[in-house]
Amino acid sequence: MPTLKELSANRSFGGWHKQYEFHSQALNGKTRFAIFLPPEADAGKPVPVLYWLSGLTCTDENFMQKAGAHRIAAELGIAIVAPDTSPRGEQVANADQYDLGQGAGFYLDATEAPWAEHYRMETFVTEELISMVEAQFPVTDQRAIAGHSMGGHGALVLSLRHPGRYCSVSAFSPICNPAAAPWGIGAFTAYLGEDRSRWNPHDASELMKAATSDQYCPTLVSLGLSDAFLSEQLHPEKLAQAAEKSGYPLTLEQHPGYDHSYYFVATFIEQHLRFHGEMLNS
Amino acid sequence: MPTLKELSANRSFGGWHKQYEFHSQALNGKTRFAIFLPPEADAGKPVPVLYWLSGLTCTDENFMQKAGAHRIAAELGIAIVAPDTSPRGEQVANADQYDLGQGAGFYLDATEAPWAEHYRMETFVTEELISMVEAQFPVTDQRAIAGHSMGGHGALVLSLRHPGRYCSVSAFSPICNPAAAPWGIGAFTAYLGEDRSRWNPHDASELMKAATSDQYCPTLVSLGLSDAFLSEQLHPEKLAQAAEKSGYPLTLEQHPGYDHSYYFVATFIEQHLRFHGEMLNS
Repeated sequence: MPTLKELSANRSFGGWHKQYEFHSQALNGKTRFAIFLPPEADAGKPVPVLYWLSGLTCTDENFMQKAGAHRIAAELGIAIVAPDTSPRGEQVANADQYDLGQGAGFYLDATEAPWAEHYRMETFVTEELISMVEAQFPVTDQRAIAGHSMGGHGALVLSLRHPGRYCSVSAFSPICNPAAAPWGIGAFTAYLGEDRSRWNPHDASELMKAATSDQYCPTLVSLGLSDAFLSEQLHPEKLAQAAEKSGYPLTLEQHPGYDHSYYFVATFIEQHLRFHGEMLNS
Repeated sequence: MPTLKELSANRSFGGWHKQYEFHSQALNGKTRFAIFLPPEADAGKPVPVLYWLSGLTCTDENFMQKAGAHRIAAELGIAIVAPDTSPRGEQVANADQYDLGQGAGFYLDATEAPWAEHYRMETFVTEELISMVEAQFPVTDQRAIAGHSMGGHGALVLSLRHPGRYCSVSAFSPICNPAAAPWGIGAFTAYLGEDRSRWNPHDASELMKAATSDQYCPTLVSLGLSDAFLSEQLHPEKLAQAAEKSGYPLTLEQHPGYDHSYYFVATFIEQHLRFHGEMLNS
């Protein structure tokens, strides 16, 4: 079990927000994550965990600082774990663009050079991070997963690819059909190679379309109708069509006037946390 | 009346978060501020305004992104205006330290060179900003003022120096006795000169000690007892002694475990907003 180095600790809503660093085997290097522990956990009572996956350019900090989630997580007795969005460091491959390389891991295991050496975010999030958190913090094995934009893609795809691992999934403004969107095409080409048949297993709409009932996981997706990325990058209509085809338990809500920012996330995070709370605390 | 240039607009909790830029006469240059307009204002109904003053190194953005205040402000029907913490720009005097110059205006009108040319934050906040906001947005002339750290100092001092301008004042982790704290001594020496008799009119504890009942303004101050700056920079005991001496209506709350960060502000902002709401909406 890796040694955790505590980087910061702040009291928040009667619980604790903390940041830690440790050496990740999956990422082949140091990584940082943030955790919110509600008051119950502080008192030693095991609590369920929501894993939050952030979007392009983010770190473990954006959600914790901007979403206003601690208040409801404290009330519901849910821990929140926010990993970084990619491997980091001087030895880690990078690119001169915001949507590839560090800060843009896309929650998959890269197969292509130079990315494959460190970019293994799927294994990190679904295996190593869970094992570490459940061994080292007062939490249960009840898990939910959620995210924003690239992280919404990650939450949807990881829950579909790992049935049973999460009780519920939700996403704000997710990249619903990355195999057909500029952000996804760029990342998949670099990380997975030119062969498009290797992209569909990492595309939420393709996975959901083919899902069988043993893969079903209660899913809530929220989109802002003034999101500047809606039509070019997000393609929620593809996810809706996929769910209709397979009978997937998807609730897709569209909110007039809201955009892609954390002000949108903050406005509806209470609804998402209560949605997860129903599954996690049942 | 200056022309406002809209820089951004985000839907948030049924209202709007917007940023604007305009030419300030007091600051002798361009300045930026953020405003949250609750749903009522969006529908044209005038609402009261809370002015929020941020701390060292902050801009108009920190509070709006990190405090989680929009939810309660939307519920209570209060607008929030957050100015920048100093004048800005290449032509504006600056210093190679975080606690003087740009980002560290200390909410006073500087009298000394080279600062006096632009650093007139007291006139800006208490006159120009109010006139502009009340002329250009659907708001009433009911005002409250609040802030964090250097901005807590600003809120306390400006309410004491301008009786009747604000219905209520509150502060998180304020610099309560800047004339006797390193941050305040450095700033007052630069902005006001070496003569310490000119500092006391900008020191909340000195002002509150000498306050008469016509200056009374309901005041709520919150401090975290794990605040790393508590004993060296903040000196809340001086404010408590001053209030006791003059009979000032000060409520000073101390919270074990909490620090100087926005996680502390976020935890107790609901209490502060409801405190202001009672005065503003009465």
